[in-house]
Amino acid sequence: MASESTHPKHFGLLVYPGFEALDAFGPMEVVNDISLSHNITLSTIAETLDPVSTIKKGKHSAGQSVLPTHTFEDAPALDVLIIPGGYGGFETTPKLRQWISDTVPKLGTLITVCNGASLAAQAGVLDGRSATTNKALWKECVAYGPKVNWVAKARWVRDGNIWTSSGVSAGIDATLAWVASEYGEEFANNIANGMEFTRASSSTDDPFSTLFQCADVPPQA
Amino acid sequence: MASESTHPKHFGLLVYPGFEALDAFGPMEVVNDISLSHNITLSTIAETLDPVSTIKKGKHSAGQSVLPTHTFEDAPALDVLIIPGGYGGFETTPKLRQWISDTVPKLGTLITVCNGASLAAQAGVLDGRSATTNKALWKECVAYGPKVNWVAKARWVRDGNIWTSSGVSAGIDATLAWVASEYGEEFANNIANGMEFTRASSSTDDPFSTLFQCADVPPQA
Repeated sequence: MASESTHPKHFGLLVYPGFEALDAFGPMEVVNDISLSHNITLSTIAETLDPVSTIKKGKHSAGQSVLPTHTFEDAPALDVLIIPGGYGGFETTPKLRQWISDTVPKLGTLITVCNGASLAAQAGVLDGRSATTNKALWKECVAYGPKVNWVAKARWVRDGNIWTSSGVSAGIDATLAWVASEYGEEFANNIANGMEFTRASSSTDDPFSTLFQCADVPPQA
Repeated sequence: MASESTHPKHFGLLVYPGFEALDAFGPMEVVNDISLSHNITLSTIAETLDPVSTIKKGKHSAGQSVLPTHTFEDAPALDVLIIPGGYGGFETTPKLRQWISDTVPKLGTLITVCNGASLAAQAGVLDGRSATTNKALWKECVAYGPKVNWVAKARWVRDGNIWTSSGVSAGIDATLAWVASEYGEEFANNIANGMEFTRASSSTDDPFSTLFQCADVPPQA
């Protein structure tokens, strides 16, 4: 548990067309709640400042749009970056991958949600790491990271300063687990209780890896 | 369970400054997932078309902004309306309350999340109904609805076509319960599994009413 003065100040949320609503806004709820008692900033970062929709064309007929605050060019230095998944996270642009590979080494903490891990893997930042990702689309997601040690039975995986979560709502558990490591369990539990959210009992509390019959995928030689 | 042809087509999300991120985007995740297999529309409705922030000034230092698609003046006729709570939901404008009181009688279904019920109560549309709301701020929330039968031990309450949920993440359970009633349990469970979300076992599966020592509040004579 870090002392107050060393707590992270600058949070970032990466968004792109077709990001998954709850992948982003589960962790954002936690970040917003941190901001009730800690003076932090949150940058919503995208390729341009145009509104970014959750709609993946050809997939969804309904969605919401968020307004970025920064582009890849003018995003501030970040302590914590959250990368959501979504149907749009499979088709990335070179610019997006470059920004991730440039940014992650300078972060204090990276949190990926769902196939946000596939996106991070495409940028190479999960190479040699243990990670998890979406369980319903497990095989499709892990294929993007041949150099990653993919752990199936995991609500989330922590490998050093990189936290990867299972699908969609698991991002809330991963973010709360990171909050507990940074600010203490009591603080994390208070946020969870305020959200009326029952936390996963541990990082391996993952019924969905069983439901979707997911198996570990070690890095390819 | 309604037949395909009678399923709702037009969904609306009400937003206002200081709405709670997960109150809105938990149910929105479910709506977006419905839209993967059903052709629906989602209108994001606010007092103006300006971006609407989750930040309640003086409370949060971090937040996100969503872009409305419609104002109260040009919002289309809706089948389903979702009203999130949030610190901004306690201080409503006459225009907001008027829109709610004009709109709700014409809806197929109203879903409120957290103190979205307090907002609906201020507009009078919960008078004579049973409802629930946020548990951490129970007494503050129920005070806005003196003519409402407030049920404490409830993840959600259904009273006819009005579904009210407990705090924040409970909105996901309430929306999935409504989905089950409208499209069937299998469809609702498939969405929940895709979200890797473990549904509350029933409408009374609510540990937070105990944690926060909430008691029923009947309507005042």
